[in-house]
Amino acid sequence: MPIELPVVEKILSANDLLAAENRRLLDAHGVTAVNVMASPGAGKTSLILRAIEALQGRLRVGVVEGDVAGRVDADKVAETGTPVVQINTGGGCHLDAPQVQSALRQLPLDEIDLLFIENVGNLICPTGFALGEHINMMISNIPEGDDKPLKYPGMFSEVDAIVLNKIDLLPYIDFDLSAFRTAVRALNAEAPIFELSCKTGEGLEAWVAWLSQQRG
Amino acid sequence: MPIELPVVEKILSANDLLAAENRRLLDAHGVTAVNVMASPGAGKTSLILRAIEALQGRLRVGVVEGDVAGRVDADKVAETGTPVVQINTGGGCHLDAPQVQSALRQLPLDEIDLLFIENVGNLICPTGFALGEHINMMISNIPEGDDKPLKYPGMFSEVDAIVLNKIDLLPYIDFDLSAFRTAVRALNAEAPIFELSCKTGEGLEAWVAWLSQQRG
Repeated sequence: MPIELPVVEKILSANDLLAAENRRLLDAHGVTAVNVMASPGAGKTSLILRAIEALQGRLRVGVVEGDVAGRVDADKVAETGTPVVQINTGGGCHLDAPQVQSALRQLPLDEIDLLFIENVGNLICPTGFALGEHINMMISNIPEGDDKPLKYPGMFSEVDAIVLNKIDLLPYIDFDLSAFRTAVRALNAEAPIFELSCKTGEGLEAWVAWLSQQRG
Repeated sequence: MPIELPVVEKILSANDLLAAENRRLLDAHGVTAVNVMASPGAGKTSLILRAIEALQGRLRVGVVEGDVAGRVDADKVAETGTPVVQINTGGGCHLDAPQVQSALRQLPLDEIDLLFIENVGNLICPTGFALGEHINMMISNIPEGDDKPLKYPGMFSEVDAIVLNKIDLLPYIDFDLSAFRTAVRALNAEAPIFELSCKTGEGLEAWVAWLSQQRG
């Protein structure tokens, strides 16, 4: 008969432990957090700015901006009067839970209903790191091409919602919408796909309605 | 007087050692290798296909395709009759020297003058990993936005040449060419900037001429 000894199983990583702490902090303050992931230039900040505009007077928004360097996006958000914190990863290709924890300490959480966490522009690295978020969403976009689900299956398969941005460019770019939808569905049976343009505003309403529902 | 003892300095990483081996192998076969880096969907494969077309009868091209998953790009290259090897990183956000070494073993190096190594679509990770290449170049693109040098300074500062692709979309997108050029120059005083469109062919000639010169 084997000797009894302590067996330790399913250890959470340091990042997961801190992500769970972030989640408890967000819940305690009644904040719903959305992790926004995408390639560089897909329209993460544009979409967040559109949401701030559309939700005015209904939900109070806060933003955490993640970038390798700079504060271009945080400045744009700050101009709207929305509470925002910039994280610079200094070369890191994704946000992590400790970085978000530091950011949360700088935000007036009791005055925020919906917190956007804009991840670093990258279709690969961010999927491996929980931040404490309630919802994971990604933005794909027309100029990026319809083959992205085939090349970056990790992100497409794990998110709760997919925005396909820049549909105003469809007349000028070869993009097979049906091929894109089929490739997404092969990876992710559930996530709604919102086809929209942050530039023209087309299609935004459905995404904002979905977002408001997530808030519950 | 201090006792004499062996002092080991400036150790190369395993990746750098293998990259140096790759470089020797390429040189022994008279192959010039170009590491092509960019965001997802910036036009890496399109640019390589344009080069294959333009250099026909002048330089023999080979291609290594790097992707997280799939073989979409390698299939496109193979259709032209060009020798090509696909590397799947299985989640890795950049190519590394051992992966390229495996690929080189599968290529007819004596029948190749110019080898394109298409890195994984990512503006951050690939800069940290030498592959044995002679030239590092990156592709930025109009829909991605003019602020990318501010957000991804690492890559813009380290490359030998910068292609700005999709200039055919300039009429439909707010992109400040002058701001882009100024931001690039603040990071990289030397690298030529080639503004072109893989779709229309505009501006390609200057880039192809530069490429041919690198071959020496």
